Amino acid sequence: MKIVVLKFGGTSVGSIERIKNTAKIIISYLKQGYKVIVVSSAMSGETNKLVKLTKKISNNFAPSEYDSIVSTGEQVSCSLIAGRLIDKGFLSRSWLGWQIPILTKGSYSHSRILSVNKKKILQFLKQGGTPIITGFQGINAESRITTVGRGGSDASAIMMAKFFKAEKCIIYTDVDGVYTTDPNVAPKAKKIKKISYEEMLEMASLGSKVMMPHSIQDARLNRIDIEVRSSFKNLPGSLITKKKNISSNNIIRGVSFTKNDTKVTLVGVKDKPGVAASIFEPLFKNLINVDMVVQNISSNKRETDLTFTIKNDDLAKTEKLIKNNRKINFKKITIDEKVSKVSIVGVGMITTPGVTFRMFNALAKKNINILVISTSEIKISVLVDQKNLKKAVDVLHKEFKLDY
Amino acid sequence: MKIVVLKFGGTSVGSIERIKNTAKIIISYLKQGYKVIVVSSAMSGETNKLVKLTKKISNNFAPSEYDSIVSTGEQVSCSLIAGRLIDKGFLSRSWLGWQIPILTKGSYSHSRILSVNKKKILQFLKQGGTPIITGFQGINAESRITTVGRGGSDASAIMMAKFFKAEKCIIYTDVDGVYTTDPNVAPKAKKIKKISYEEMLEMASLGSKVMMPHSIQDARLNRIDIEVRSSFKNLPGSLITKKKNISSNNIIRGVSFTKNDTKVTLVGVKDKPGVAASIFEPLFKNLINVDMVVQNISSNKRETDLTFTIKNDDLAKTEKLIKNNRKINFKKITIDEKVSKVSIVGVGMITTPGVTFRMFNALAKKNINILVISTSEIKISVLVDQKNLKKAVDVLHKEFKLDY
Repeated sequence: MKIVVLKFGGTSVGSIERIKNTAKIIISYLKQGYKVIVVSSAMSGETNKLVKLTKKISNNFAPSEYDSIVSTGEQVSCSLIAGRLIDKGFLSRSWLGWQIPILTKGSYSHSRILSVNKKKILQFLKQGGTPIITGFQGINAESRITTVGRGGSDASAIMMAKFFKAEKCIIYTDVDGVYTTDPNVAPKAKKIKKISYEEMLEMASLGSKVMMPHSIQDARLNRIDIEVRSSFKNLPGSLITKKKNISSNNIIRGVSFTKNDTKVTLVGVKDKPGVAASIFEPLFKNLINVDMVVQNISSNKRETDLTFTIKNDDLAKTEKLIKNNRKINFKKITIDEKVSKVSIVGVGMITTPGVTFRMFNALAKKNINILVISTSEIKISVLVDQKNLKKAVDVLHKEFKLDY
Repeated sequence: MKIVVLKFGGTSVGSIERIKNTAKIIISYLKQGYKVIVVSSAMSGETNKLVKLTKKISNNFAPSEYDSIVSTGEQVSCSLIAGRLIDKGFLSRSWLGWQIPILTKGSYSHSRILSVNKKKILQFLKQGGTPIITGFQGINAESRITTVGRGGSDASAIMMAKFFKAEKCIIYTDVDGVYTTDPNVAPKAKKIKKISYEEMLEMASLGSKVMMPHSIQDARLNRIDIEVRSSFKNLPGSLITKKKNISSNNIIRGVSFTKNDTKVTLVGVKDKPGVAASIFEPLFKNLINVDMVVQNISSNKRETDLTFTIKNDDLAKTEKLIKNNRKINFKKITIDEKVSKVSIVGVGMITTPGVTFRMFNALAKKNINILVISTSEIKISVLVDQKNLKKAVDVLHKEFKLDY
């Protein structure tokens, strides 16, 4: 069987008109001779509406009941798609997580898919049917509804592609692919034809909102090619695939950035072994994501300056934790909420020397001051003043030949 | 175990405030030492909203998918109730039809509850838990979601009361009981303390919208006492029970009426054996509910006049079926859409002669012309001009001593 998994995001099923369009896309694959497995999200806005209801009851709403509530969104959208296909003369039906079943492990709202029972779905495909499977949900060992926190419906689609050995896994969404950078910031941004899982992971975790990092990681671990494309425009999308499938000459695949970072500097920290651990331990325990960290050599040898970045949202909590921390001793705390992290991402840099130099040089020529630097194998990030963000993205996009 | 089944209708869970109030009512029973089984409808308006979505896809939307969609309403409301109880420190959880399971038979959207697996619920009750069970839904032999057409969530509650041998089954709704007649038409209407299943059935099928006839019939067949009361006001409700539990002296329990009837008369029908069957067969086949039927003796012995009533909504279809009916022969069809059926209902009339006379006499004194008459053991109905409706209800309410 030539199986394709098609996943539709919330905006792709956000209205009855769009659901009809989704059915049209599904039918086009059926006409090409594919067996189609559909995975759908809830109609856009529905999940938020349901979450709001639970919040009105309690901010600590029971997670088991929360999952049962939010999972209804996919139940509705999948039945609407199936209903449309049936109305158009095709054999179709919705499959809820418990009906397959899709078994999950882990806690409510943060479950991961453990296994998918293939029997009934394969039988249905053989009969010529098109199953419409609820994304985002499964059941646990107690037969209660769970939701997949990490990656949501994308994760569901990737697992379907894995278990059913699909030839393709296509994520239909409201963007038409992965871009070299955000077209809203840099109009010269280009759609990337092929990108490796690793590059996509760096792009995703740096703010490219096409797919959640956990879903990309799932795809990478299971070696599943993912095509991201628009359900609104019939255009080729971007393929997320293995490194070896990519023959492009570009050293850098894209320029990524964040907008909501805050830089925190502790000036005059008494330097002694373990001081960094003492500072960051309470932050980690409170789930505050500390990103870039730099420790400066101070003129006074017994003291040091320590700089790190966090998300803006975590600032109040971070300040409190640091000020209440009796294990550390420092002179002053300075905070800068107007910073942005700009990164260049590309597997090509591993084998190409001088990328770092070219990046710094390009920024220097435009008088952009680098506040903090951090690097990984396929990514170099710099922290800059927010006012320099657009200029930095533009110059790097040009420097690494992404403009054309 | 002292079990009580509490059923909450759509308006009783129509907002977060009302769900909180519902939790308060549940807790009051727990504090009295009851084990409580809750059955809930969807939040008011939700089911209609979902039905609308399906209609936008197709007027022939696949019933299997339709049931999967509309059943989400109860899934949400039950989890919200359970979440509220948990938040208040009580052990509670929602139970979906498939989780119990509640097995149904019959076609989608018109299923009937066949059995309820008691094991898990009993275990949960013994642990001190309060199960919140989705009304209106179950699963069929193929493990697909079905909805209970006949009586909806009330039917679910009655089945729970039956299978769990509940001491009480209380229907919480937006009216505070069953009245002798509609208080909006006759301000002298009084709440009925106790009413027999049979009387309630006649009242319900005649338009008192407290409960669906099929639910009352379910309760009657299973000898389950039902209390109908308001979830908004803490007032005693009405008890629907066995005849022998009722000691009231009233001959007549209430005055019921309809507003949307149409009278159809076929004038000069060629009278021959089987003519009535020929007229009504196509109507029955098209699910048109023919109510009162009268055949007049005509002056011409070979001809007769035939009068019957239908719902206004069925008029267009009925006219077409009659005019296209080649098996019958008549001179003229007359239609009157401005008629109402007024009925007196009471088990007492079986043993009390002269009730019919008193009814006709009371109407005659007020110059109300009777168009058609139909009687059953515990009900006498007359068709009157719609303009006489209020006058007829008032005079009958007074005549049978329901005013005080």
